[in-house]
Amino acid sequence: MAQLDFWYDFASTYSYLAASRCRTLAEVEGVSLRWRPFLLGPIFATQGWTTSPFNLFPAKGRNMWRDMERLCAARGLPLQQPNPFPQNSLLAARLAVAVPDDLRPAFSLAVFRAEFAEGRSLSDEGVLSECLASLGLPTAEFVQKAKSDPVRALLREETERAQKLGLFGAPSFVTPDGEIFWGDDRLEQALNWAKGAASQ
Amino acid sequence: MAQLDFWYDFASTYSYLAASRCRTLAEVEGVSLRWRPFLLGPIFATQGWTTSPFNLFPAKGRNMWRDMERLCAARGLPLQQPNPFPQNSLLAARLAVAVPDDLRPAFSLAVFRAEFAEGRSLSDEGVLSECLASLGLPTAEFVQKAKSDPVRALLREETERAQKLGLFGAPSFVTPDGEIFWGDDRLEQALNWAKGAASQ
Repeated sequence: MAQLDFWYDFASTYSYLAASRCRTLAEVEGVSLRWRPFLLGPIFATQGWTTSPFNLFPAKGRNMWRDMERLCAARGLPLQQPNPFPQNSLLAARLAVAVPDDLRPAFSLAVFRAEFAEGRSLSDEGVLSECLASLGLPTAEFVQKAKSDPVRALLREETERAQKLGLFGAPSFVTPDGEIFWGDDRLEQALNWAKGAASQ
Repeated sequence: MAQLDFWYDFASTYSYLAASRCRTLAEVEGVSLRWRPFLLGPIFATQGWTTSPFNLFPAKGRNMWRDMERLCAARGLPLQQPNPFPQNSLLAARLAVAVPDDLRPAFSLAVFRAEFAEGRSLSDEGVLSECLASLGLPTAEFVQKAKSDPVRALLREETERAQKLGLFGAPSFVTPDGEIFWGDDRLEQALNWAKGAASQ
């Protein structure tokens, strides 16, 4: 079966767009999608960035929000800008690593919706607990697990893996033969590539 | 009739992609397209960049070239990386301002093809003269005109206008009501917006 890795950061607006459609598209195309949360912050830091490029470069940032508004409107997705932007995505990412594999997509979607559809804060453990509870997961247990050394190490390793792969932004789609497709607008290409690679 | 401005820099890879298809697409959609060459360099300089972001951020740069390879292959477009990248696009842009309006698209396409399909140097006046000659234009006269004060001023004004509009990259498509669509992959959206705005 064709395989594709979906690398995302909860602070990333275009990851919200991709998360909202990649599961269905991958199913339709018969591609097995692996959801891989990571942190862009440490990768940005290596090039001297201490915040999102959308804050560092204001004209680019204004255009990104307008682009998001237009795309969300066209797709019927709600959009609210969280304050501050970017949100601190560390605990959300650790939780996404901590939850069972089969619940990772649903948990991640719940987080993205709270953040970008409702404009809620990811620094608020209550918000993340609601996301866990909506899946029937015991919240205190998973918040504790998310803060444990093994989960912290796992997320750190995933972020290092992302950097070694050459990822520099999110979302990124990576095929088993090493092709990197950056951005929600490359999702269709990535799925096609994954299918082509699997049929060879 | 629906109107759309196509802002491009000859040094920009994705401007090559857009230039190769926007004229035909605009004709099909019934949108009048205005070709507006400008210089990204002075805009990049205001944010402290002395070269292309694809050089400043190597992982992003590697991905851009691979993305270009995949897109050019899918569209049947030749691709050769000019050396150095980015090319100095100053004289090419001045020439594009200097040529008659109705020949600007054809001249610009000739330049983009020389640079990115054949990997030739835009610093070589001979290359640019060939582009002029291919349209039947007297080369010495237009090279002289391109270096004249009025043409230099006009390109400077266009670049300032681009910056005032909030452009930060190329290609950018701008509608009469001020919507900015950045990137070859937003061309279809830009054409749709232009048509919608014109029908109101």
